[in-house]
Amino acid sequence: MSAIKFELIKKDPGSAARLGSLTTTHGRIETPIFMPVGTQATVKAMTPEELVEVGSQIILANTYHLYLRPGHELIARLGGLHRFMHWDRPMLTDSGGFQVFSLGELRKISEEGVNFRSHIDGSRHFISPEVSIAIQEALGADIAMCFDECPPYPAEQSYVKKSLELTTRWARRCKEAHSRPDQALFGIVQGGMHPDLRRESAKQIIDIGFDGYALGGLSVGEEKEIMHQMMHECTDILPEDSPRYIMGIGAPEDLIEGINAGFDMFDCVMPTRNARNGALFTSFGRINIKAAIFEEDQSPVDPECGCYVCRNYSRAYLRHLYRSQEILASRLNSWHNLQYYLDLMGKARSAIDKGEFAGFRREFYAKRNLSPSL
Amino acid sequence: MSAIKFELIKKDPGSAARLGSLTTTHGRIETPIFMPVGTQATVKAMTPEELVEVGSQIILANTYHLYLRPGHELIARLGGLHRFMHWDRPMLTDSGGFQVFSLGELRKISEEGVNFRSHIDGSRHFISPEVSIAIQEALGADIAMCFDECPPYPAEQSYVKKSLELTTRWARRCKEAHSRPDQALFGIVQGGMHPDLRRESAKQIIDIGFDGYALGGLSVGEEKEIMHQMMHECTDILPEDSPRYIMGIGAPEDLIEGINAGFDMFDCVMPTRNARNGALFTSFGRINIKAAIFEEDQSPVDPECGCYVCRNYSRAYLRHLYRSQEILASRLNSWHNLQYYLDLMGKARSAIDKGEFAGFRREFYAKRNLSPSL
Repeated sequence: MSAIKFELIKKDPGSAARLGSLTTTHGRIETPIFMPVGTQATVKAMTPEELVEVGSQIILANTYHLYLRPGHELIARLGGLHRFMHWDRPMLTDSGGFQVFSLGELRKISEEGVNFRSHIDGSRHFISPEVSIAIQEALGADIAMCFDECPPYPAEQSYVKKSLELTTRWARRCKEAHSRPDQALFGIVQGGMHPDLRRESAKQIIDIGFDGYALGGLSVGEEKEIMHQMMHECTDILPEDSPRYIMGIGAPEDLIEGINAGFDMFDCVMPTRNARNGALFTSFGRINIKAAIFEEDQSPVDPECGCYVCRNYSRAYLRHLYRSQEILASRLNSWHNLQYYLDLMGKARSAIDKGEFAGFRREFYAKRNLSPSL
Repeated sequence: MSAIKFELIKKDPGSAARLGSLTTTHGRIETPIFMPVGTQATVKAMTPEELVEVGSQIILANTYHLYLRPGHELIARLGGLHRFMHWDRPMLTDSGGFQVFSLGELRKISEEGVNFRSHIDGSRHFISPEVSIAIQEALGADIAMCFDECPPYPAEQSYVKKSLELTTRWARRCKEAHSRPDQALFGIVQGGMHPDLRRESAKQIIDIGFDGYALGGLSVGEEKEIMHQMMHECTDILPEDSPRYIMGIGAPEDLIEGINAGFDMFDCVMPTRNARNGALFTSFGRINIKAAIFEEDQSPVDPECGCYVCRNYSRAYLRHLYRSQEILASRLNSWHNLQYYLDLMGKARSAIDKGEFAGFRREFYAKRNLSPSL
């Protein structure tokens, strides 16, 4: 008995794009969907009410960070992550695997798990598949992820093969350890940038059987073209009736390519992180609000956007806030960028619903004077 | 013909406290009132909508900062400060005098005005009474302030006397220079911590005649008792039918003492600045949210507070956000502190309305285990 129910509503005739509905313990999600990242139990600079206003249906929180601070046991004693952070809608936690790989210091991987030191205070820690599942069950998100090893890029084929096999053994242990009936568990496909290894990993993970399937280990330094190619390598063998998730990507065009390849869920820090650096997404491409050209510009960030920021503030004001290092700059920029991402997903869903995703994708690139990488 | 209309509604029988109504170009204010400080055309970490939600009726912006960045002429070309920052209610600008004194570098005062260097980029600037009024007219707040000299503390009586006389001559020039019919102009009483000089300054400023009167030069390092004493030194000679404003103070008890002495308007960065440092105001006194005692505390910041923060978040979560240096920490802490300040003003008004301000003041101190300084 799965803790989620995925319904495939419609398949686009001109692409692998699909429209779906994912029902979780805390509510229903329309797919394809983008999940804002709430690393430390907050999507940076946003309140939960604002997340709902921009159209967020599900958010992601980071197991690695919350395990280190304030600690998953504390959060469990306070009633779980939903209550702790005042978010009562669907939520997903990652496994900590990628963060141990990218943030943990003096990392040492063994069959049993990973020893590392905290990036906050240097203290020693150990996370295994069983520990990751215990942390995620304590946090209590609607969807948990298997603890995986994310190989570096570039990496030797032989290393990547050993790594994906370890990820498979860990996935088996995660499934074994997982016991929370109101929480789904997704498997993660690794295999680096090697098409055959991606397929091999996918087969092994599908063999174990999970509530959903994710691609891990993308956006680790590879070319866009390779990233987009990897999205197509194993979708034909992923079960059609399970949700498919690409972890940690990406730019708007990466989401479009992911949807085009048949994926349903995405997450990335890009909209919020870029916002804090003054980079704003618009229907005609990216702008940097600190540019002198916006000094007296009374127009909104994106005339095609109807968000709170675009309705009420000029580019000139946003430029002033950014140059003055005001907190409101991070707030308004994050707000707009998340609205952009969620609107893009909404438009993609609507295009799939009308059977017009291929045209929508063409138009997306044309408005930005870009071409697809594939 | 004044750009504002002040109506004295009621006088408290047991104190000098007064209930009033101040009508400005952008709307009506109930007094006594606290004005959140929007230094750089934003009250730090807050949107205008949130300011309204916590009960803000009028906000203050800093002439010195906005003159330096983005520049008052730019703001005027963009339609004025109200439109620039998306705030359509009453607003007051200070004259820049205090900031030139506290932030400007290599400051050199002459009869004509003040030469100084920008604290942002070291560039040279000159502000005179006429320049300050021109900047404030360009910004377009409902209430402008006279350009004054704020003497340091401690200071020789002879220096303070010369200084207040310069402030008087500058006040005359400000009134002469001021021409915007939809903007009121307030005079500023100086005189340091010398009761006789305060009275002398007040007489000179009243003699010139302004739409309202302010006490400047308080909270510059003096003892609380002296600050509170100064509040009483000249209220008996300030015109009863004009609004009275104490600039740049203060702690909640300073506001209570100001109201008790017959003042109507206050501003201070304390609620927002303290918030960003984790210091929160409550009905039982100040707490610091980073304290270990709050680690698992599920209660709201102040059980007597009904604000968005206290309705939805625990002390444990706010402590986590603060320790994790999250932007949401600054947001929620500022929100609560401003609500506390505005609620305190609302309760004071209600107490005056019932003729019970003296009892309200006694209870305010009793709940905090404090005594009035006077």
